[in-house]
Amino acid sequence: MGTGGATVPAVSIGEGLMKLHGYYRSSASFRVRIALNLKGIGYQDAFHHLRRNEQRAPDYLKLNPQGLVPTLEDDGELLLQSMAIVEYLDETHPFPPLLPGHPGDRARVRAIAQMISCDIHPIDNLRILRYLRTELGQDEAAVQRWYNHWITEGFQALETFLGGSDQTGRFCHGDEPSLADICLVPQVVNSQNFKLDLTPYPTIRRIHEACLALAAFERALPKNQGDAE
Amino acid sequence: MGTGGATVPAVSIGEGLMKLHGYYRSSASFRVRIALNLKGIGYQDAFHHLRRNEQRAPDYLKLNPQGLVPTLEDDGELLLQSMAIVEYLDETHPFPPLLPGHPGDRARVRAIAQMISCDIHPIDNLRILRYLRTELGQDEAAVQRWYNHWITEGFQALETFLGGSDQTGRFCHGDEPSLADICLVPQVVNSQNFKLDLTPYPTIRRIHEACLALAAFERALPKNQGDAE
Repeated sequence: MGTGGATVPAVSIGEGLMKLHGYYRSSASFRVRIALNLKGIGYQDAFHHLRRNEQRAPDYLKLNPQGLVPTLEDDGELLLQSMAIVEYLDETHPFPPLLPGHPGDRARVRAIAQMISCDIHPIDNLRILRYLRTELGQDEAAVQRWYNHWITEGFQALETFLGGSDQTGRFCHGDEPSLADICLVPQVVNSQNFKLDLTPYPTIRRIHEACLALAAFERALPKNQGDAE
Repeated sequence: MGTGGATVPAVSIGEGLMKLHGYYRSSASFRVRIALNLKGIGYQDAFHHLRRNEQRAPDYLKLNPQGLVPTLEDDGELLLQSMAIVEYLDETHPFPPLLPGHPGDRARVRAIAQMISCDIHPIDNLRILRYLRTELGQDEAAVQRWYNHWITEGFQALETFLGGSDQTGRFCHGDEPSLADICLVPQVVNSQNFKLDLTPYPTIRRIHEACLALAAFERALPKNQGDAE
């Protein structure tokens, strides 16, 4: 049972609690946890242990044919893909908004989110690193170089983009957290697990710290989940 | 100069034509071309040859610090990331819509788009295959196995998802093209370049063919661009 960031009263559609299928270390599940907490939506957890391949169990594949987490169940709606889920939550629970109002600003927030969720995260996630080790026979040093290469390329571009823009505020876009921050924080936490030196990215570090000062982000951290090891 | 699918009159914001920075073989540029054509928006092309690394030129990096295509310029707005650009176009030029109206349906369309644009395309694109060849010293057979592994995993899940849903119609969602189809078609064309056997994916093939019957998709094909080789 997620406790939520609960500064905003929970708004529920239909009867029961939403159910989040996730895994504590999954960056994509982490994104959805933050969004649920920011919206003050209480939810029920269903844990799927990725390192034990529980996300490939036949019953779970019926919910999510990709065999990936997260999946969100909301009163009959079955929702896949973390960014799509966050936008769904924003459309069904508009307060507080996770996207700004102006189309150009919305595009900027989505672009930052996608710089991370399309161009960094998929290349450095568990299934890819596993393939490098098993199918390509790469040693841990080569896997670490792979990880560092893609996250460095991504974070350098993101630091330039965020640091050089007067639209960046306390958070990635202005002074309220958005979909962009929801994608940024899990990627930074992931990079810390890989001991990436974040010194070259002062704007990213500053925004990350501002986010973690909020209960909604802090409570969504992997270590604060019921399946954390 | 893109000719557009122009069944819908062009609507322009501000003065000049939009400018699309792209490359004929870029799947992400292809997505934006389809969206512009579906909306009937005329645009100007700026080509950046990815295999000659023109997207890393200092002047282009000022527009797009990732050094990736596409970038769209629209009357002072500088727009990055193909899915963010398509949503921007949908918000600023609402007809014909590229997302349905109901939040659950919108989430389904976005999820399909992200199954492709987050979980297939980034892993199989040019910069990754280049790293496999150069940094990891993989031969062409290993690169082809890599490509096939990720696209097969992705297309199998997508075929199950689309084929098993009564929300799938002539297109990925119902009987009008959407953001989902805009992501699907470039990925199928890309897979054909790698000679992937599409026999196991009848729903994907059927939708792909339905899309290419529309001028907006057909005119956006790589071979129909001014920089095609």
